[in-house]
Amino acid sequence: MKKVAVILAGSGYLDGSEIREAVGVLWALSSHPVEVECFAPDVNQFDVIDHLTGRTLGERRNVLTESARIARGKISPLSTLTPAYFDAIIIPGGFGAAKNLCTFAYEGSNGSVNTTLASILNAMHTSGKPIGAACIAPAILALNFQHTVLELTVGATSDAFAEIQKLGHKHFVTKPNEIHIDKTNHIVTTPAYMYDDAPLHEIFEGIRRMVAAVLSF
Amino acid sequence: MKKVAVILAGSGYLDGSEIREAVGVLWALSSHPVEVECFAPDVNQFDVIDHLTGRTLGERRNVLTESARIARGKISPLSTLTPAYFDAIIIPGGFGAAKNLCTFAYEGSNGSVNTTLASILNAMHTSGKPIGAACIAPAILALNFQHTVLELTVGATSDAFAEIQKLGHKHFVTKPNEIHIDKTNHIVTTPAYMYDDAPLHEIFEGIRRMVAAVLSF
Repeated sequence: MKKVAVILAGSGYLDGSEIREAVGVLWALSSHPVEVECFAPDVNQFDVIDHLTGRTLGERRNVLTESARIARGKISPLSTLTPAYFDAIIIPGGFGAAKNLCTFAYEGSNGSVNTTLASILNAMHTSGKPIGAACIAPAILALNFQHTVLELTVGATSDAFAEIQKLGHKHFVTKPNEIHIDKTNHIVTTPAYMYDDAPLHEIFEGIRRMVAAVLSF
Repeated sequence: MKKVAVILAGSGYLDGSEIREAVGVLWALSSHPVEVECFAPDVNQFDVIDHLTGRTLGERRNVLTESARIARGKISPLSTLTPAYFDAIIIPGGFGAAKNLCTFAYEGSNGSVNTTLASILNAMHTSGKPIGAACIAPAILALNFQHTVLELTVGATSDAFAEIQKLGHKHFVTKPNEIHIDKTNHIVTTPAYMYDDAPLHEIFEGIRRMVAAVLSF
């Protein structure tokens, strides 16, 4: 039975993992005969945002603790993830992916990736194991693999698109229910809520396809 | 086009709405030609629980503000919900449904329902409009309609089951992917995470059926 690690980044699209995408990934995985474990870094969130008003709050929240809301408590610190044990990694989107897992949200193509996550991604990639990413999470891969030309999608043309191209990667335009498969690098991406107004069932269809493609490698 | 109100109770199964069930309801609704609005009471949560450790924290969080994480900011105070405008109401589960929308979690069959929600439910029921509820949320209906014999499910036999029977309602045993339809009262329930270890895609199937049945009235 394949083993899949899902990397979360908090709980809420403005400061953590995009909740619906994270649930979509777990839903899609649940219909396959796979073992799933959730992980998140045990660090403070970059910020805490009031999702009603969009205002940044003064309080602090921990990425692992908040991710546990999506994972229903079944989650471990990212530092305990052993790449050799897993067959695939999937990263949902949300601003948390670009703030808590890397610095793309505020440094763009000059950003860097959480060092623990970077070594996990490097180990997976070196072993030819597949990586799936939704929404803005492909930016993590773009920053991490700067010496490899990846094929990625973050949906339509956007600032994120431009920054990913600056890093030398190839960007492919896709719709919410579509995916792009980088057959050379075993990377599968889907735009999800990069389309803010996309119907949720279309986003889930993109995620379902992404998960199926990741498991097909 | 039918209009459906989804009532949230925070974000996280131990102190708010069960995130996955709430997303499942929004996902199921998105594939129907309906208008959907989310609502939550603008009050402090009964408690705030660390979902990693299960411990109660000292901090305070607002039900509406936290629900906005699931609703992606598109949510209104429950006090602004006009029952006449809506054709149906759906309430996902999670302990928040039993702590923040009513007092069932700590008072059982002696509990009471948030007064704003109670008058909304009464107005909907009097007009013969359907109400859907997942997981423990049927307990809200059990408390609210004590002079009517409802047909409800909260899954298998449990303490919640016993408390609902004390209130004079009929309980039906169902599996995670099943629903129970009370044809007299236009109430549709599905057990969802009352089965803690149920595969997420089975829970989604129960929710999908619940939503379809609600919209069929």
